[in-house]
Amino acid sequence: MPQLRQDPVTLRWVAIATERAKRPLAFTRAAKAAVPPSAQCPFDEGHEQMTPPEVMADRAPGTAPNSPGWSFRVVPNLYPAFGPADAAPTVELVGSFATMRGSGVHEVLIDSPDHYRDIADVDVAKVEQIVRGYIDRYNAAAANPSVQYVLVIINHGREAGASLEHPHSQLFGIPVVPDAVAEEIAGVARYQREAGACPYCKMVDEERSAGERLVLENADFVAFAPFASRLPFESWIVPKRHSARFETMAAGEQRSFAAALHALLAKLKVGLNDPPYNLYIHTAPCREGGEEYHWHVELLPKLAIAAGFELGTGIYINVATPESAAEFLRGVDEQSAPGAPAAATGHG
Amino acid sequence: MPQLRQDPVTLRWVAIATERAKRPLAFTRAAKAAVPPSAQCPFDEGHEQMTPPEVMADRAPGTAPNSPGWSFRVVPNLYPAFGPADAAPTVELVGSFATMRGSGVHEVLIDSPDHYRDIADVDVAKVEQIVRGYIDRYNAAAANPSVQYVLVIINHGREAGASLEHPHSQLFGIPVVPDAVAEEIAGVARYQREAGACPYCKMVDEERSAGERLVLENADFVAFAPFASRLPFESWIVPKRHSARFETMAAGEQRSFAAALHALLAKLKVGLNDPPYNLYIHTAPCREGGEEYHWHVELLPKLAIAAGFELGTGIYINVATPESAAEFLRGVDEQSAPGAPAAATGHG
Repeated sequence: MPQLRQDPVTLRWVAIATERAKRPLAFTRAAKAAVPPSAQCPFDEGHEQMTPPEVMADRAPGTAPNSPGWSFRVVPNLYPAFGPADAAPTVELVGSFATMRGSGVHEVLIDSPDHYRDIADVDVAKVEQIVRGYIDRYNAAAANPSVQYVLVIINHGREAGASLEHPHSQLFGIPVVPDAVAEEIAGVARYQREAGACPYCKMVDEERSAGERLVLENADFVAFAPFASRLPFESWIVPKRHSARFETMAAGEQRSFAAALHALLAKLKVGLNDPPYNLYIHTAPCREGGEEYHWHVELLPKLAIAAGFELGTGIYINVATPESAAEFLRGVDEQSAPGAPAAATGHG
Repeated sequence: MPQLRQDPVTLRWVAIATERAKRPLAFTRAAKAAVPPSAQCPFDEGHEQMTPPEVMADRAPGTAPNSPGWSFRVVPNLYPAFGPADAAPTVELVGSFATMRGSGVHEVLIDSPDHYRDIADVDVAKVEQIVRGYIDRYNAAAANPSVQYVLVIINHGREAGASLEHPHSQLFGIPVVPDAVAEEIAGVARYQREAGACPYCKMVDEERSAGERLVLENADFVAFAPFASRLPFESWIVPKRHSARFETMAAGEQRSFAAALHALLAKLKVGLNDPPYNLYIHTAPCREGGEEYHWHVELLPKLAIAAGFELGTGIYINVATPESAAEFLRGVDEQSAPGAPAAATGHG
């Protein structure tokens, strides 16, 4: 099982994922593996035996598990960073250092059998199916007693850490509430105390009225380049309705969210030639705390390298203003997305 | 002048560096610039006119500033992320958002005229000259009233954010104490309160006696893979003597530090075929606070990609144990470093 270790100064946890451990020489520069082509892709239809057995799938009636006939499929990660999800782990000492078993969940959510069309390319009904899948698997992961937090992410493109190009998301159920979320929850409480409002509600209002950082808006969601954007084209999708939990969205909101996610990713793909990106959903912890939180999505295109200054300070140097990034994305017609002749939209 | 902006929730600062702003289309995937070869390198001898005028240089007697004849040379960054260093900036509001002028210092410290030999390849006396240069420029930057913190970094290799391959370091004087340092200072105080000791002193003792994460040791310094390593081959250099400030090292310690830095970087270069890395020096803030801190160097090889999980949680997934990384580095004979035939040691 992977092991969590805690830095004694910052109290920052790291996961030492021995399940995916590599030999030291695997890190030399020559040894980087290539992304496999579609013919060897474990996420393509007909290759179901290349993954661990599915834990959920949307399937045509009469098709057997782990066979063709699915439109959305979820499997455990073959090299899990967390798991399995047994009893809630406790802190143990190694010398004076704190550790914890890395129990939890690590799943891969495969968008569709189509190797080349991702959320930017498909219709909103398809994205809605993916969002429903996020919520279903969220609830399944949160039911484990060892899981304190569930994070859904997309890594898109090799430079953003995707080892397979077939469109997919990942879900992590982990035994601690991560610092990045705890810090935001504490920030919401502080802002509420000092300014008498939720800072995300305030941002939604301010970005809608200022307009210069707005990227798109629909009935339930706003997407904008945040005022303190860390990276060029950083974009957040924030619900207009104050709500702590992504997983409690009503059906109509799920459709609006799917539409906003599709439109933002299509603008990025069309406007910037399919850039690599990381995306994650920040929602409240699944057991307790964070009731005042305001869930949202953060999208970070990988168009710059966080280097020594960023690592040493925690301060990002961003060479593009969010105002210019938002203006550019507002002007992109996402309807002109090619929609998908296979070779043209493949990335990698 | 660049602008600092503060995220209203996390209070995290970002620097919007308009001096180095790019047009949105410069971010499309096709537009990445190549590293210029030596013949066009602004840091090579004879190319002094390609940089802003030098602010300091170690020069042969009788040579004029900004001409050949130097062995170590410091110039302002042509595209500064901070600066110039005028009066101490104050927080201003834009709507409900906090901003600050990005005043400060951003310098490039050029190791030597040699385009191909870096700290891993040269003798310890040369590294000592570079370390003296760090201290001289640290003191010059800290003398500016707008500068609250001074960070010295090395970005090595294109994947680690180096836009020029000629060996160099960078120095940033910034108008805030960065979160990453403030968090460590608070952690030292908490550990002192709870355990009655400095956590870095404790780590030095524990790593020396355990030995399994030790990489090297000399009279004044220990290098080890930290227990909670974020990335494969992460290594810290920590002084044995408890001291808050890098810049107050005695002459003998400077020599020991140069030897440890050279040996660690040579082991990395020989053992892992010159991997890209980021390195920074964490020292106490230059005006006030952090008197109980314990300065050190953190070296982060860029052998893995921090992706959606790391960005969304602040928790790194590390696929190598620090024990295996340290064992590997201990076994590398850094004396076998090629030392430099030009083409063989170039990276890029």
